[in-house]
Amino acid sequence: MSVAIRDAWIVTQNPNRDVLKGDLLIEDGLVREIGDVRSGADTDIDASGDIVLPGLINTHTHVAMAIMKGMADDLPFPDFLARTFSIDSKRTPKDIKCGAELGCLEMIRSGTTTFVDLYYSEDVIAGAVEASGLRGILSWTVLDQEFTTQSGKPMDNCRRFCESFRGRERILPAVGLQGVYVCSSGTFVEARDYALENRLLLHFHLSETRREVNDLKKREGMRPVEYLDKLKFLGKTGLAAHAAWLTLNEVRILGRNGTSISTCPVSNMKLATGGVAPIPEMVVAGVNVSVGTDGSATNNSLDMFGEIKTLGLLQKSSRWDPSILKAQQLLDFATIGGAKAVGLESSIGSIEIGKKADLVIMDGKSPNLNPLRRENVVSNVVYSSSCQNVKSVLCDGRLLMKGREVLTLAEGKVVDAAVDCVRDLMG
Amino acid sequence: MSVAIRDAWIVTQNPNRDVLKGDLLIEDGLVREIGDVRSGADTDIDASGDIVLPGLINTHTHVAMAIMKGMADDLPFPDFLARTFSIDSKRTPKDIKCGAELGCLEMIRSGTTTFVDLYYSEDVIAGAVEASGLRGILSWTVLDQEFTTQSGKPMDNCRRFCESFRGRERILPAVGLQGVYVCSSGTFVEARDYALENRLLLHFHLSETRREVNDLKKREGMRPVEYLDKLKFLGKTGLAAHAAWLTLNEVRILGRNGTSISTCPVSNMKLATGGVAPIPEMVVAGVNVSVGTDGSATNNSLDMFGEIKTLGLLQKSSRWDPSILKAQQLLDFATIGGAKAVGLESSIGSIEIGKKADLVIMDGKSPNLNPLRRENVVSNVVYSSSCQNVKSVLCDGRLLMKGREVLTLAEGKVVDAAVDCVRDLMG
Repeated sequence: MSVAIRDAWIVTQNPNRDVLKGDLLIEDGLVREIGDVRSGADTDIDASGDIVLPGLINTHTHVAMAIMKGMADDLPFPDFLARTFSIDSKRTPKDIKCGAELGCLEMIRSGTTTFVDLYYSEDVIAGAVEASGLRGILSWTVLDQEFTTQSGKPMDNCRRFCESFRGRERILPAVGLQGVYVCSSGTFVEARDYALENRLLLHFHLSETRREVNDLKKREGMRPVEYLDKLKFLGKTGLAAHAAWLTLNEVRILGRNGTSISTCPVSNMKLATGGVAPIPEMVVAGVNVSVGTDGSATNNSLDMFGEIKTLGLLQKSSRWDPSILKAQQLLDFATIGGAKAVGLESSIGSIEIGKKADLVIMDGKSPNLNPLRRENVVSNVVYSSSCQNVKSVLCDGRLLMKGREVLTLAEGKVVDAAVDCVRDLMG
Repeated sequence: MSVAIRDAWIVTQNPNRDVLKGDLLIEDGLVREIGDVRSGADTDIDASGDIVLPGLINTHTHVAMAIMKGMADDLPFPDFLARTFSIDSKRTPKDIKCGAELGCLEMIRSGTTTFVDLYYSEDVIAGAVEASGLRGILSWTVLDQEFTTQSGKPMDNCRRFCESFRGRERILPAVGLQGVYVCSSGTFVEARDYALENRLLLHFHLSETRREVNDLKKREGMRPVEYLDKLKFLGKTGLAAHAAWLTLNEVRILGRNGTSISTCPVSNMKLATGGVAPIPEMVVAGVNVSVGTDGSATNNSLDMFGEIKTLGLLQKSSRWDPSILKAQQLLDFATIGGAKAVGLESSIGSIEIGKKADLVIMDGKSPNLNPLRRENVVSNVVYSSSCQNVKSVLCDGRLLMKGREVLTLAEGKVVDAAVDCVRDLMG
């Protein structure tokens, strides 16, 4: 099975950040040729003047919450939590599946090909991801027994999930931790040991709110990153979501340990938690930065194009410095930064020969992307695009959407099912 | 000529903010029936499950700058100004026309039906607006002779434009002022007198940067709003763009004078000018708030859906209060707030019988808008939508876009012309 994509602007995101005009040949799920492709292919896509990007990588979400969008907006934080927990506690595996399928559709339509999830019931979510054709790093959430609504011990559930879903094509099971506010040191250490033994990603919430930082300081006399460092929890396979309320010392500890972060600017701004992740300092300290949308109850969108634009706006405006983060860096965070964050930088995150063909084709003739020139392709993708420009999406060399038609999940059925689920949940 | 739109969620934005499920009948450009439309129509649109909104109103832009997108990003403010002024000074009427047509296409595709422009060459821009079918309030920029690149006296150019374009169907000429940094008191007074005599909108830049505020304080011993109040420049037909660096006293002066503002959050954040418009205080002081995208060199998008989401995020995050502005208010600013700002609240800004049929139809079956329920229609439009959801757009009862196909301007030609213009400009 081969696919040729012809005559496009190719935003390679390779080490030189080359933007090329030319063709791509994909065979057996991999990029085989870049430039001038003479041979034919099973599927030939005329992308004349279009833009081809590496598929975007959303490194923090709770995809099954897609059915909860628009249900708890504009509320003070405690009211928001009460409302979402109350809806969440009523949900059945059918609701989880339905939410995950809906979220996968949103991601395909907005050019995301890989995402990192943090949730329970990841076995159910995995089914939706496999059906969608996306790549999912699915982290089963571990927390102390006394705080969980999971039946059984969370760490056992996590182990069972990871063992059942090893070796799948596009599903990477991973270990999740809810955060210092509901995880004891023993829970952190047990999760870390299991993840290290089995070479799994360790994905965890970190310093989203001041409250969790202050509570830990009272309890342990340390800030969260200092505490996790002392537990030897932090390492190269760690991915910390939010990482908003950090000191410079904490940033340096993350850098030293090789721990990646997933910044979630829209969610932080919408919940008004006050923290602005110190991204420029992270870049200086060598912390690998990636970007996540967070779940649909707090964003309320899974659109990574919107997310990176907002990230740039937030960083520029909060520092009063329009040059603090540039378009190229913002795109890097959503592509190769994401790939590094999940340990897949040798196979995804850029368009290079031998890498997996996870690709987004954007309509280069759209008025909002023009005038399009080599010099402004990246700027226009970051600051002027929207998911309306996403025409076609490939993951692992397979077309998931072609000409805005999703080829994997049955869109109408998924949307109708989501409406039904919510009717049953909310009355 | 009649149009029926059937079986949609109708976000009326009427005084009760009713969200109805039903039909709309449009005759002679006006909304004639809302609810259950029995009669047939010349054009029948099945909008089953779709969302119908009043057309969005962008109250501050420089539409002809659409061809300058992606040319001056991530630069310190003085470098940004030097670069844009240098490109701007080379532009010909052909470039202005081309940029205006491109910008009009972007606005149609993102659900804007009325916009307020501030520029020179508004006669050229008017041609593009008429061809596009949009409604334009076109403010010719007046400034002191010594600062202008216009040939002739700016106030005379403005007068000539306003006189030539009186009484057009969807073009409202207006008087623009660049701002206190390039307009003397005499210029303000002359412009005001002409606008009042001729019942024209007075549209002006106000307190976008700290520098213009500080420079005026040095020169006049007053802050800009205090100074304009002393000149008796402020009134009900005034529309102040940006209005970011204001004291509470200035907010109250605007409220007392009935002057509207157009907040431009994305532009302010991207240029990192530091100011956050005090919208909650404006609401308390009775200032009418509307929203603008600013021009494409600073945003770099004319998408009002993105703008109102970012406005909400910025206000919430800068106040650490997730409930400070709610979805309904954000939508109000972009519809009835915009209509009030341009003095057209009796004819546009909401879907009510007898008002003009300026309408946006959004695909209610899109995954990113679902699950859609009466309770979350407004929330989902504000926080979850994107311009990918805009299917069809009517202005004055005329279909400008149907099923994502623009029916007025020739999209391919406009985009190609924009690329050519920029090639000539930039080499």
